[in-house]
Amino acid sequence: MSRDPILADRAVYRHWSRDTVRFCDQDAAGHVNNVAVCAYFETARLTFIRDIGMMRAGDDGRRSISAGLEVAFLRESHWPGEVELGCGVLAIGRSSVSLGAGAFRDAVCIATARMTIVRLDRAGPCPIEDEFRARLEAHRIAPA
Amino acid sequence: MSRDPILADRAVYRHWSRDTVRFCDQDAAGHVNNVAVCAYFETARLTFIRDIGMMRAGDDGRRSISAGLEVAFLRESHWPGEVELGCGVLAIGRSSVSLGAGAFRDAVCIATARMTIVRLDRAGPCPIEDEFRARLEAHRIAPA
Amino acid sequence: MSRDPILADRAVYRHWSRDTVRFCDQDAAGHVNNVAVCAYFETARLTFIRDIGMMRAGDDGRRSISAGLEVAFLRESHWPGEVELGCGVLAIGRSSVSLGAGAFRDAVCIATARMTIVRLDRAGPCPIEDEFRARLEAHRIAPA
Amino acid sequence: MSRDPILADRAVYRHWSRDTVRFCDQDAAGHVNNVAVCAYFETARLTFIRDIGMMRAGDDGRRSISAGLEVAFLRESHWPGEVELGCGVLAIGRSSVSLGAGAFRDAVCIATARMTIVRLDRAGPCPIEDEFRARLEAHRIAPA
Repeated sequence: MSRDPILADRAVYRHWSRDTVRFCDQDAAGHVNNVAVCAYFETARLTFIRDIGMMRAGDDGRRSISAGLEVAFLRESHWPGEVELGCGVLAIGRSSVSLGAGAFRDAVCIATARMTIVRLDRAGPCPIEDEFRARLEAHRIAPA
Repeated sequence: MSRDPILADRAVYRHWSRDTVRFCDQDAAGHVNNVAVCAYFETARLTFIRDIGMMRAGDDGRRSISAGLEVAFLRESHWPGEVELGCGVLAIGRSSVSLGAGAFRDAVCIATARMTIVRLDRAGPCPIEDEFRARLEAHRIAPA
Repeated sequence: MSRDPILADRAVYRHWSRDTVRFCDQDAAGHVNNVAVCAYFETARLTFIRDIGMMRAGDDGRRSISAGLEVAFLRESHWPGEVELGCGVLAIGRSSVSLGAGAFRDAVCIATARMTIVRLDRAGPCPIEDEFRARLEAHRIAPA
Repeated sequence: MSRDPILADRAVYRHWSRDTVRFCDQDAAGHVNNVAVCAYFETARLTFIRDIGMMRAGDDGRRSISAGLEVAFLRESHWPGEVELGCGVLAIGRSSVSLGAGAFRDAVCIATARMTIVRLDRAGPCPIEDEFRARLEAHRIAPA
């Protein structure tokens, strides 16, 4: 579940990215809109996947797609400022990986997410390459 | 789970809204971006909540917030066109309601979602009013 | 100038498209955000250009790019609802065309725009093809 | 005109803000979408106006609104990275101010803008307060 408290703990993340809170990310309720929070988690996910090396399509058409997103909205947030995004690995399957992420304003976690990435070739889901698997393992989110 | 096949079945929905697919909803992968799909489901959710009557804050500060979102991305989609959005009720608790929704291009379901709405007053979560409860019941998503 | 009153007159437009006002198009000021208005005018412009036939890149790499945008914000607007978008031609040059557009909520014009489209091939700006030129002429915005 | 080359010169700006290029800012043409560029200029404009002190509504309802936007799209840009936003003052009128801005990726200007801000009270346009006028003067964009 994306509401797992472990995902709201900065200490579990080794990979960090950032996004700018835009004025237009706020909605008529006066705080950052849920859709903008989904955009922040896209930044977290794609920066992570790019840094692992899984972003670029290979000659054989292999690529990574986003199959699922679960977000828990925990705190209101406002413009201006930046959001810090921690991202790590919850589970690694044959052809998919489950990522966990947290969005932070200073010490406060405003939202957590689980995101499922699937590795595809032209025929459909394909095994995640060993070189990526080893890199993903290094980002396991594990309680002490 | 938002991937429940029942949510991809148009027949389960009584409430429908629409959104326009914008060119800028597409991303560099050449199809509608996941964040835009989250915006479509915001349209589904808020149009539903408004039509039920739970959108407006009362004099006593009661309001409805979005606490969680789960999306399963099922098919690629493209500009131009419209997306039809079915929305219904999966479960009703004391102070929260779980919505199910599907986004359709013609006969094809491109994504399904589960969304959690919480009813709040100034002290925190509060019981969903009986008048809303009755209206929500009328939108139950139930297999035959 | 995009503030030209002629652009706020529904009668000058023969080409119409629509966009859905999204809840997240509104900002913390409680009305539709200027950036969302720019998205509506993208819908107006690209639907027009597609309908004229200038959207698709040819085998020789010819394409149309957006070189400039001028928007006059005239009225506040709110979710929910739709915006109707009129689009026409203000001027046709050798390799560029100047479009005029208006965004309407019912009888009210909420914003007007001028947009410059440039026709390019691999070497840079190239003449607009005669077939497109004739179609563009049919959409001239002309005072009586 | 927003295409004035002076606006593409980093040296004319004393006020700087930043925005993050999001993956979803890119469109199906594979580069940063025009609407996203308008969002970057909103960041430039509102950060500037906030830093001048003109953002907050006073007790008498005075506020600043955006009345017009002109953007010249100069170069393609891509995810990931940041955009640096310079902003300054082109002209100061009785109740309005014309801002100039440039969006930069490293040494390259990707777009320039002119933006018109109007100071309003409940009766309509009102004189810009002297304290703001003095601060605005300090940000004049002036060729040597």
